[in-house]
Amino acid sequence: MKEQKKKTTIVLFSGDYDKAMAAYIIANGAAAYDHEVTIFHTFWGLNALRKDEQVPMKKGFIEKMFGKMMPRGADKMGLSKMNFAGMGPKMIKKVIKKHNAMTLPQLIEMAQEQEVNLIACTMTMDLLGLKEEELLEGIEYAGVAAYLGEASEGNVNLFI
Amino acid sequence: MKEQKKKTTIVLFSGDYDKAMAAYIIANGAAAYDHEVTIFHTFWGLNALRKDEQVPMKKGFIEKMFGKMMPRGADKMGLSKMNFAGMGPKMIKKVIKKHNAMTLPQLIEMAQEQEVNLIACTMTMDLLGLKEEELLEGIEYAGVAAYLGEASEGNVNLFI
Amino acid sequence: MKEQKKKTTIVLFSGDYDKAMAAYIIANGAAAYDHEVTIFHTFWGLNALRKDEQVPMKKGFIEKMFGKMMPRGADKMGLSKMNFAGMGPKMIKKVIKKHNAMTLPQLIEMAQEQEVNLIACTMTMDLLGLKEEELLEGIEYAGVAAYLGEASEGNVNLFI
Repeated sequence: MKEQKKKTTIVLFSGDYDKAMAAYIIANGAAAYDHEVTIFHTFWGLNALRKDEQVPMKKGFIEKMFGKMMPRGADKMGLSKMNFAGMGPKMIKKVIKKHNAMTLPQLIEMAQEQEVNLIACTMTMDLLGLKEEELLEGIEYAGVAAYLGEASEGNVNLFI
Repeated sequence: MKEQKKKTTIVLFSGDYDKAMAAYIIANGAAAYDHEVTIFHTFWGLNALRKDEQVPMKKGFIEKMFGKMMPRGADKMGLSKMNFAGMGPKMIKKVIKKHNAMTLPQLIEMAQEQEVNLIACTMTMDLLGLKEEELLEGIEYAGVAAYLGEASEGNVNLFI
Repeated sequence: MKEQKKKTTIVLFSGDYDKAMAAYIIANGAAAYDHEVTIFHTFWGLNALRKDEQVPMKKGFIEKMFGKMMPRGADKMGLSKMNFAGMGPKMIKKVIKKHNAMTLPQLIEMAQEQEVNLIACTMTMDLLGLKEEELLEGIEYAGVAAYLGEASEGNVNLFI
């Protein structure tokens, strides 16, 4: 009888570079230990999945404002602490490089290679006016029901 | 033999409108899937349960200050990101209305209708000087032991 | 046959006094109920484990800056909300004293007495330039693999 795979699920709510790093480090670790891993991106966490170029889209006024004010992709995100108007992320990226660690965009790429399920929450995409065309390729789109289905079977469930 | 219900528990520590929305959306989803759901409100998360009118109470100086400075009820809470001195919550409420989604007070009402256990942490109520008379009707009052009893049987446990 | 102990794991990512209090209150509660408890300190959560005196160390420029800007130990940490340039923590400490509750340094001491496993994440120590000599005695040092090993057996797993 085949043993069932362990499951790890993460709700990535935060749009902070450091918190998203923590989420993706745990996710990649769990995938390396052969867990089935899901990251459910909601609210500001969706920004980690945005493409870095601007994708011209027809949008309402508020949606346009959200689109402009939110960071366009993982590399542009700020820190949860000691952001110092962008100085903090530069410092973090320098030490990441120095220690041969991985940047957030590299961690996301690795997660995709390891077949971590990257899900974008459709309800909050609607609220923030984000369209599928603006997000990375290879993402799944689902709602809270899909998340709960995974999480209720999960060994490790985190909200970040 | 009756199958046991799944359990979902959420510690709502945050006093941010968006984070509390996420907590209540997950809680309502889990209740709809017939989970037994508990939200344990502690620290700033207690503000989601405050009545919106002022309840005159005899309090010490610090407790009075906390009472004045903290938002009086779910509708007054700010955003964790892009709050812009209250502009952000207005924008979020506009898009919620536009997409026929539910506001935080509506989500809380729905949770009560679905018999989600809303617990206020008595220890942090003491610290912040909040009294039972200031909180919504139908709330339970308990401490960390009650939370741990639920969570140690939980399928999905989150800290938000 | 001996029943297996329940397990609680907490990732303490946050460097906020109030969030760390919540983490240590839950951890101490779980230990009192005979859970095996692990707190995995990563990123800003490492500051809770710093000694309060300065430990002279040879460091690079960025590491020195991080060291200077981050709070030196639990007692120096700020609040996640209403910090008011340090006023908030003073208010919280006053009400803690008034209600005979425990301060964060006392909660950490109690956790050590109850044999809660306090782990410092070695990868983020490297990034932030923190050395073992700067952290409290009795701490363990490990990476995300050790965390995942514990968490995948955990009954309650939280990210704070």
